[in-house]
Amino acid sequence: MKVLTGTTEDISKILYQEQLELSKENLDVDDAVRQILEDVKKNGDKALKAYSEKFDKIALDDFEVSQDLIDQAFEEIDPEVLEALKNAKVNIESYHKQQLESGFEDQPTDGVIRGQLIRPIERAGVYVPGGTAAYPSSVLMNVIPAKIAGVKEIIMITPPQKHFEPAILVAASLAGVDKIFQVGGAQGVAALAYGTETIPRVDKITGPGNIFVATAKKMVYGLVGIDMIAGPSEIGVIADSSANPKYVAADLLSQAEHDVRARAILVTDSAELAEAVEVEIEEQLKRLPRENIARPSIENNGRIIIADSVDAMFDLMNQVAPEHLELAMDNAYDYLDKVQNAGSVFLGHFTSEPIGDYYAGANHVLPTTSTSRFSSALGVHDFVKRIQYMQYSKAAVNAASHDITTLAYAEGLQAHAKAIEVRHD
Amino acid sequence: MKVLTGTTEDISKILYQEQLELSKENLDVDDAVRQILEDVKKNGDKALKAYSEKFDKIALDDFEVSQDLIDQAFEEIDPEVLEALKNAKVNIESYHKQQLESGFEDQPTDGVIRGQLIRPIERAGVYVPGGTAAYPSSVLMNVIPAKIAGVKEIIMITPPQKHFEPAILVAASLAGVDKIFQVGGAQGVAALAYGTETIPRVDKITGPGNIFVATAKKMVYGLVGIDMIAGPSEIGVIADSSANPKYVAADLLSQAEHDVRARAILVTDSAELAEAVEVEIEEQLKRLPRENIARPSIENNGRIIIADSVDAMFDLMNQVAPEHLELAMDNAYDYLDKVQNAGSVFLGHFTSEPIGDYYAGANHVLPTTSTSRFSSALGVHDFVKRIQYMQYSKAAVNAASHDITTLAYAEGLQAHAKAIEVRHD
Repeated sequence: MKVLTGTTEDISKILYQEQLELSKENLDVDDAVRQILEDVKKNGDKALKAYSEKFDKIALDDFEVSQDLIDQAFEEIDPEVLEALKNAKVNIESYHKQQLESGFEDQPTDGVIRGQLIRPIERAGVYVPGGTAAYPSSVLMNVIPAKIAGVKEIIMITPPQKHFEPAILVAASLAGVDKIFQVGGAQGVAALAYGTETIPRVDKITGPGNIFVATAKKMVYGLVGIDMIAGPSEIGVIADSSANPKYVAADLLSQAEHDVRARAILVTDSAELAEAVEVEIEEQLKRLPRENIARPSIENNGRIIIADSVDAMFDLMNQVAPEHLELAMDNAYDYLDKVQNAGSVFLGHFTSEPIGDYYAGANHVLPTTSTSRFSSALGVHDFVKRIQYMQYSKAAVNAASHDITTLAYAEGLQAHAKAIEVRHD
Repeated sequence: MKVLTGTTEDISKILYQEQLELSKENLDVDDAVRQILEDVKKNGDKALKAYSEKFDKIALDDFEVSQDLIDQAFEEIDPEVLEALKNAKVNIESYHKQQLESGFEDQPTDGVIRGQLIRPIERAGVYVPGGTAAYPSSVLMNVIPAKIAGVKEIIMITPPQKHFEPAILVAASLAGVDKIFQVGGAQGVAALAYGTETIPRVDKITGPGNIFVATAKKMVYGLVGIDMIAGPSEIGVIADSSANPKYVAADLLSQAEHDVRARAILVTDSAELAEAVEVEIEEQLKRLPRENIARPSIENNGRIIIADSVDAMFDLMNQVAPEHLELAMDNAYDYLDKVQNAGSVFLGHFTSEPIGDYYAGANHVLPTTSTSRFSSALGVHDFVKRIQYMQYSKAAVNAASHDITTLAYAEGLQAHAKAIEVRHD
């Protein structure tokens, strides 16, 4: 891992440069994706079939995954995986139900009613990657908040497969997906955004995908809503001398195994711990089945930052604004106040990140590459809209009229003023 | 106005085609904006000064608007405008305070704590357009929610002027802006996103602007948060035979005067009302100072849709998903349940849209071009992040261990399983 030392300001500069790199556009992908979007918009199902043959090497007659295939998945799934998915679902539901908002209404003066409604979006689309990146846990994390929000119809799409991983179809069914279509990539995103003869267009698209999927989501944003542009996954660990280097190393590696671009960042005020973690990482890496991914990730993107105080540790980590943040400290709960930017926080020596990835119930779809500075974990709030409303009686309009028309004339918007004046007695 | 009749399905298709047109990209602008962003990222203040001379024809020594200029604005402002701004501020504050969320925490089983913190974003940037599009009311609407959310520093930028409209500076001061810099366009957005020697980079950028500003916001999205990509302003009016055609016409025109691209859409089940509104529009247009804007807007983008039932009126209008929605009906409040998509709803014959634009307290920064299907008015929620947290005791990890490792192995993520197993006794 690269070790960063120096003043907080020096390290800040380095962190910001890295963040700029991560947010760069890729213009070649842009052009390819733009063409796919146009094609699907124009040619619908026909385009989808062509892309399926070209990219997935599968000729499809029908995109919808049948109930028979789903029933079969329930028969094929390992019963222990089924049990674990069901238990995870219970926890995800009980956590997310706490996010349900209610509207409000007040009557600030006579004849005036103001309020805010909370309405679910009507139709949501969830993208689920294919192959080894198909995670049943992500299906639960994307679908359950939408279901709790009250979304009427949830459409899932996933690249065509000769044989679907049973846990994916089972998770979709447990979570309450209404329809599953086998179509992936930028063309899948296009189908959800524009609709085709068989795939209905949705109001919002969520779920992770490769660079083509991410670029397509960014391009259709505006016509439909999207969750976020997910970058490489990352973990930040703040550890002091009370931390166990074995645990810290294992947690950093659990992130590194995701992707060669994944980032594992340790901030510590203990040089001794930093060294012990480096030794442990090497020790554990050797025995890791996904060493081929985790090693380049750790070597290229791993960072150990030595800070000289508790406050400096938190200042720097708040600048990293990590997707996952572990506080490997005694009495970690007491330090929550110092956390300004993070998607999800794991407190104390035993709360390893995978607990949150799979089980505790908080969402694992989290803001990456420093976007936790301004955005949040996926949740029920992402599947609702707030609709404002107001009602003024005739007397209330007359009472407010002078102020309103004064502002309208000051802004040069005379028709705005006239719309009030036409209602005068 | 163009009159649309036919089945709900036919009209739906036309509305969707119009929506597609509105969401099209403009690739020429893209290239120009990309160059400006790169220039400001690399050259900072020097680039900003060059663009100010080039685009604004003003040579600046210092970007910051001094306290002297702000004090002077308070002396210059029309006292009635000042009074109206103060009254509007009171209403905006009392409405938005109702949006403040609190976090939650539960202990679902022994040794497990889960929760969600609400944290304000740290630094927000507000873009305020220059010239005739500089609206003091928009300053209040963008800044007050950020202030209520608890944002620590609010930076406002606005294009350089020989003499600033006093109401703009006064509104900024009343609302609690911390610093004002005179820099506009794509270069202004770049300054907020990347920071320069004098302008600090922010975590989120809000506020309306022209196509260059909007494109720049879209491009820096990811590195910073943005509010939304605002399209042309629009009003939808659902009116039945109880509506007053004078009022309906005045309200449609109040939207049309904003911009030749603004959209005014009437849906009614009364052919008689439709005709009366058309006559009134012509009558009022003639006397409108901004007729040169409002007339092409009404002629090109005005729509009258004749629906054959109350439900059909709401179905079609929910598909339009207008930024502003007026229900010009008796007992309008009782129809709120039928509204699925709208930014802000104005109930009854007297609640003219300008009441909401200026005064009632609900926000006037609203989702345009059908995006109210999945997004909402600007509010306090746009200036906070939700941070999840969890803590498992050693015993709680052991109890959950089997389920977690089962799922990790099923997904082929062995390091995730190891991070749990390393904590076993």
